[in-house]
Amino acid sequence: MTSKQPLARFAMVKERHRKTLETALKQGKVDEQMQGLCSFIAGTRGFYTSSCCSGRIIMLEKRGERKTETFFHRKWHRTVDEDELIDGLAEGTSGEVWLKVDPFILHIGCLNIWGANAILAAMKNAGVKRGGIIVAKEGKFIVELQGTERLGAPVKVGRKILVQKEYIKYLAARANALLERNYRRLAKLEQEFRKVLE
Amino acid sequence: MTSKQPLARFAMVKERHRKTLETALKQGKVDEQMQGLCSFIAGTRGFYTSSCCSGRIIMLEKRGERKTETFFHRKWHRTVDEDELIDGLAEGTSGEVWLKVDPFILHIGCLNIWGANAILAAMKNAGVKRGGIIVAKEGKFIVELQGTERLGAPVKVGRKILVQKEYIKYLAARANALLERNYRRLAKLEQEFRKVLE
Repeated sequence: MTSKQPLARFAMVKERHRKTLETALKQGKVDEQMQGLCSFIAGTRGFYTSSCCSGRIIMLEKRGERKTETFFHRKWHRTVDEDELIDGLAEGTSGEVWLKVDPFILHIGCLNIWGANAILAAMKNAGVKRGGIIVAKEGKFIVELQGTERLGAPVKVGRKILVQKEYIKYLAARANALLERNYRRLAKLEQEFRKVLE
Repeated sequence: MTSKQPLARFAMVKERHRKTLETALKQGKVDEQMQGLCSFIAGTRGFYTSSCCSGRIIMLEKRGERKTETFFHRKWHRTVDEDELIDGLAEGTSGEVWLKVDPFILHIGCLNIWGANAILAAMKNAGVKRGGIIVAKEGKFIVELQGTERLGAPVKVGRKILVQKEYIKYLAARANALLERNYRRLAKLEQEFRKVLE
């Protein structure tokens, strides 16, 4: 684990991800709630983020069972207004439309298993329940962390809207509350990272 | 990693989980779709399962935001009849009731990182997308694997049923289809495990 090759490879990959993040930040492509965390991680010596999403509310159109048959009909990286959902439903779709809240997801790269364990420990302290090491190779450990605030149900199929307007309004309020809760958890995670990662 | 202590500890923990599984199987407490996989893993030399659920359809009553304020109103480890959902909704509850499909979840213990990586490789071959090493200590590696077939939305709050009967019937059919798909993925995972684990 202390040979130069893995270290050099890690440094190279970390630098590449730092540049990608820098460009994405400049272009306004990083979710607001994720900017602080990603920038902090990029500034550490031993860690980098390879991908991250702070959570979202989406309308997903499924025209079949495979992922290639699934399309974003609407996507918000923020809370929504109930009318935005109602408008989204009114617009023509042909498959089955799901309304979903997806929690944050985050991939963090580290040099070795000790780094990965530091991430897992911080995750536990932040009360984040889903996370694990998904790649474990010399010089390349990747930890995936995910929130648990979810909602997801079909609301339209073909031209038929399956639910009443009242219910859509209820779901909008519920989705917003879940997303806000998800953001609070993410902020707690950033706090824990700042305590221990170098 | 080759010192005797971790090996002995691993063997002890594996044996304890083997006995727990044996008792649970005798008492009919292991989900039918999980029995083959768990029994196979228990028979390997290098792996054990510490907990597993093959997936389920549930009605969850949330009386508050904390986990201790959440109660199972109904729980099925099988597909459901639409009338079972309608009956469940009719029965008195006071909080917010969610209808949910939870995918399978599985914890596999292994001696070391090579074992954990074998699990992750088999997982990928089976097309299971969520899984990672959640404990990484000498002599104790735990991999968590989870399916991705989910559904979850509030359907009742206080005494008020939020959705119409037609929609509940649609959700019942959809939940059943998701659970069946989840079972097929689990069967594929067992197949991949049987190819490579010893």
